[in-house]
Amino acid sequence: MSNGQLLIIGGNAAGMSAASQARRANPDIDITVVEQSPYISTAHCGLPYYISGEIKDINSLTARTKEYFEDKRNVKVLTMTKALRIVSSSKSVETLDLRSGTKAALSYSRLIIAAGGDVVQPYSGKYIFSLRNTQDGLSLKKFIDSSHPMNAAVIGGGMIGLEMASSFRKLGMKVTVFEGSPAILPGFDTEISAPVERYLAGHDIKIIKSKASASDSASGGVDVSAGGRSHHYDMALIALGTKAAAQLAGAAGCELGAAGGVRTNLKMQTSIPSIYAAGDCIEVKNLISGKNVYIPLGTTANKTGRVAGINAAGGDAVFHGIIASAAGNILNMTVARTGLSEEEAGDGFGEIASVVSESASRADYYPGGSKITSKLIFSKTSGQLLGAQMMGKEGVAKRIDILAVCIQQKMKLRDIAGLDLTYAPPEAPVWDPVLKAVNTALLKLRK
Amino acid sequence: MSNGQLLIIGGNAAGMSAASQARRANPDIDITVVEQSPYISTAHCGLPYYISGEIKDINSLTARTKEYFEDKRNVKVLTMTKALRIVSSSKSVETLDLRSGTKAALSYSRLIIAAGGDVVQPYSGKYIFSLRNTQDGLSLKKFIDSSHPMNAAVIGGGMIGLEMASSFRKLGMKVTVFEGSPAILPGFDTEISAPVERYLAGHDIKIIKSKASASDSASGGVDVSAGGRSHHYDMALIALGTKAAAQLAGAAGCELGAAGGVRTNLKMQTSIPSIYAAGDCIEVKNLISGKNVYIPLGTTANKTGRVAGINAAGGDAVFHGIIASAAGNILNMTVARTGLSEEEAGDGFGEIASVVSESASRADYYPGGSKITSKLIFSKTSGQLLGAQMMGKEGVAKRIDILAVCIQQKMKLRDIAGLDLTYAPPEAPVWDPVLKAVNTALLKLRK
Repeated sequence: MSNGQLLIIGGNAAGMSAASQARRANPDIDITVVEQSPYISTAHCGLPYYISGEIKDINSLTARTKEYFEDKRNVKVLTMTKALRIVSSSKSVETLDLRSGTKAALSYSRLIIAAGGDVVQPYSGKYIFSLRNTQDGLSLKKFIDSSHPMNAAVIGGGMIGLEMASSFRKLGMKVTVFEGSPAILPGFDTEISAPVERYLAGHDIKIIKSKASASDSASGGVDVSAGGRSHHYDMALIALGTKAAAQLAGAAGCELGAAGGVRTNLKMQTSIPSIYAAGDCIEVKNLISGKNVYIPLGTTANKTGRVAGINAAGGDAVFHGIIASAAGNILNMTVARTGLSEEEAGDGFGEIASVVSESASRADYYPGGSKITSKLIFSKTSGQLLGAQMMGKEGVAKRIDILAVCIQQKMKLRDIAGLDLTYAPPEAPVWDPVLKAVNTALLKLRK
Repeated sequence: MSNGQLLIIGGNAAGMSAASQARRANPDIDITVVEQSPYISTAHCGLPYYISGEIKDINSLTARTKEYFEDKRNVKVLTMTKALRIVSSSKSVETLDLRSGTKAALSYSRLIIAAGGDVVQPYSGKYIFSLRNTQDGLSLKKFIDSSHPMNAAVIGGGMIGLEMASSFRKLGMKVTVFEGSPAILPGFDTEISAPVERYLAGHDIKIIKSKASASDSASGGVDVSAGGRSHHYDMALIALGTKAAAQLAGAAGCELGAAGGVRTNLKMQTSIPSIYAAGDCIEVKNLISGKNVYIPLGTTANKTGRVAGINAAGGDAVFHGIIASAAGNILNMTVARTGLSEEEAGDGFGEIASVVSESASRADYYPGGSKITSKLIFSKTSGQLLGAQMMGKEGVAKRIDILAVCIQQKMKLRDIAGLDLTYAPPEAPVWDPVLKAVNTALLKLRK
C-alpha cells in the first residue's frame, strides 16, 4: 500500500501516535488526521495541574504541534473538522469544516478511529463544568480567574474528581466532593480508599456520600441536590467518568463490545478489516481477568494508537491488553493500583486473600522519608499475585510498576520475594516496601 | 530439632536476619549470636550519610538492639566475642571474649556463618581510613570533627568510594578520587560512568585515573603516590572493595568457590551439612550469567540470612541468586544497575547490542523533573533484555527495579514494551523512561 491513503479520526494521544508510527512504518503513504477541536496532541492528564496553576501555559500540554506534524512528518492535519459519517462501502468519511460549514468526503484505503471518549455530563449550566479537553480546561480556568469562586462542588469521587478537588483546594477554595457509591476511588479497595478519604478530610476537602445533581442557581452559582438536601456552591465540576465515543464506529458497522467500546483484535483492527480503532473509544482486554473492559487512560491510548498506526500503514505490531495500572496525585499524595482489586478478583482464582502493610519510602534512618501503605491481593490457592494498591507521598507509582510487571507475568508470591531489587538509603529501605508487602503476604499464604 | 542449639557467627544484616527468622520458624531452639565488635544489626550502607552529617546519630543505623533481641526474640547476643575456630567434628566453636580475654567452646547442632567481608586495605596509617563498620565510621567522624581536614583523597572509584567522595564534598572538602582502571564505577559501562565522571568534575570532585598508594606523611596528613607523582592530602579513604571473610569457614572444611566466598546450596547450606552461611562471606549465583559471583550487598545479606535462619531452625526456604541490582547516590545523583553490563554479557547470548536513551523523570510539561539517562543491554539474537543502567536525580532506583523484574523473568524486549505501567504527570511521562528505552532498543533490534 505504498500509495494508500490513511485517514485518522481524532487528533489526540491515540490519533497522533498512530500518525507518527504510520509515517515511520511507511514513508510513502498519504496520512490525514481530522480533529473536531482546534487542538491536537494534548496531554489531557495535565489539565488538573493547569487549573491549579502549577502549569502556567496550557500550550505546554501540547506534545507536538500541527506544524510539526505537517512539516516534519508529512501528516496533513485538519483541525475544526468533524467526522460526521463513515461510509465503509465506499471507504470514505463525510466531514464538516466547523469554521466554514463546508462538507466534504475524504476517501481512505485504511481508516483509524481514534475518536476518544465523551464525558458523562448529565447536568449543564453556566456554573457547571467538566474537564475532558483543552476547551474545557480553558473555559474553567477563565471562569476561575474572572469570578474567583470561593467554594466548589465536585460531583464524582473517582481519580479525576479527586485530582480536580485537589486543584481547587490548592487555589484556596473550600471543596466538597459528592460520591454516590459507598467509597471513593472505584477500582481501589477500602483499605486504600478509606485512608485517602481521611487524608482529604485532613486537608479540608469534605466528602458527602450521596448521589447528587446540579443546576444553575437563580442567584448565580450552583445548587447541588443530594440526599434530600440542597447545597449551594460558586461552581460545580462534574467528574462522573467517560464513555467511549463509539457512535461513529457503531453506525459504520464496526462491532461494539459489552463494555461499550469498539472491539478490536490484537492488531487494533475492528470487525471491518480496513478500519482500525485505538484510544479512549475502544475496549481492551484485562490480561488478568481475561475480560474486556473500558478503562480510558493516556498510556493505553498511546500504545493502541501506536499499534494501529503501524498496522494500518502495512507494518506488524500487536497490543495484548492491559492490567489496569493507574496512578493519580491528590494533594501531593500518590494513589496507584494495578491488576485486580479484591472485589474484581472474585472469580477463577480459587480462594482470594489480601494483606495490608506499611513501610517507609526510604531507609528508616534516612531523613525525609514517608509512609507507604500497600495492599496486595492474591490467590491463596495458587500463590499468584493478582493485584496491588498503594498510597504514599513518594516512591509509590514506580513501586506499583514493579508489581505490575510481576502481575502481568503472573508471578507467584514466593518468586516475587526472591526478586533482586535495589537499595539506596535515600530511595528505599533494605527490604523495599514491595518485598516487605510480599513477605507479609507469604506469611498469610502459609497459614 | 526442638531443643537444638543454633549458633550464629556475625551479628549484622545476615546474622541478625538469620536469628530473627530462626526464632520465627522455631520457638523452642536455643539461639546464640557471637559478634566480635560491640555493635550489632547496623545498616552499614548508611555510614556515608553519617559521615556527611545528614544522619546525626550513628545509633539510628542500628535496626534492632541487643536488648531487643534478648528480650523480645529470646536470642542470646555475645558482643565483643570473636569466633577463633570452628571444630566441625565436635560441632563446637572456640571463642575469645575480647573484653576479658577468656576463651570458651560453644557447641552447636546447627551453625550459621555470617562473618561478613573484610575491606581490602593495603595501606594504613593515622590519616588513612576505611569504612566497613560502625567502628570505622566513628573513627573517621571523630577525626573529621577534631582535625577539620580541608582536602581528602579517595583511593578507589567504585560506588562506596564515590559515595564517600560525595560525603566529603558535602562537608566542604576538596576531594580527589584515584581510580586504577580506565573507568570509575566497575559494573557500569562507560555510557553511564562517563557522564557520572563529568557530573563529579562539575561538582569539584577531581578524578585521577591512576593506581595509587598512600602512606602517612612525616609532616602530618597523607602522601598519595600515583603515576610517578606524589600528592599530599589531609586524609585518605581507601575504598578498594571487600573480600569475603571466608577464612573461618575454609579452615573448618567448608568448600569455597572461585570467587573467594563460601559456597552454599539453595538452602544456604555449606558443603558441611550442619553449617550454613549467609551474607558478605558467601558467593552467590548470578541468575542471568549462571556464574557464581562475589557481590557483597545489604539486600543479599538480608535475604540469604533469612533463608539460612529458616532452614537452620528446621524450616524450608530457598534463595536462588541475584542479578546484581544495585544503586548508589552521589551528590544527589542516583546511579543504578541490574543484570549484566555490556562487558559482562559477552558469552552465551548470541549477538549483543545496546542503546542509550534520555527521557524526563516526569511529564515534560510538569515542573521540577530531571533527565534520566538509560542504557539497555540485550541480545539481538533472542531479543532478551540482559542488563540496564540508569542515572538521574529522581525516579531512577525503582525504575531499575522495574527492569530488574523483567531481566529476572528473562523477558524479551517486545513483551516489556507491552507492559502496563502507570502514568501520573508528577511522577512519570506517558511513555515512561523504561518504555521509551525499550522502544528505542526495539528499533535497533529490528534493523
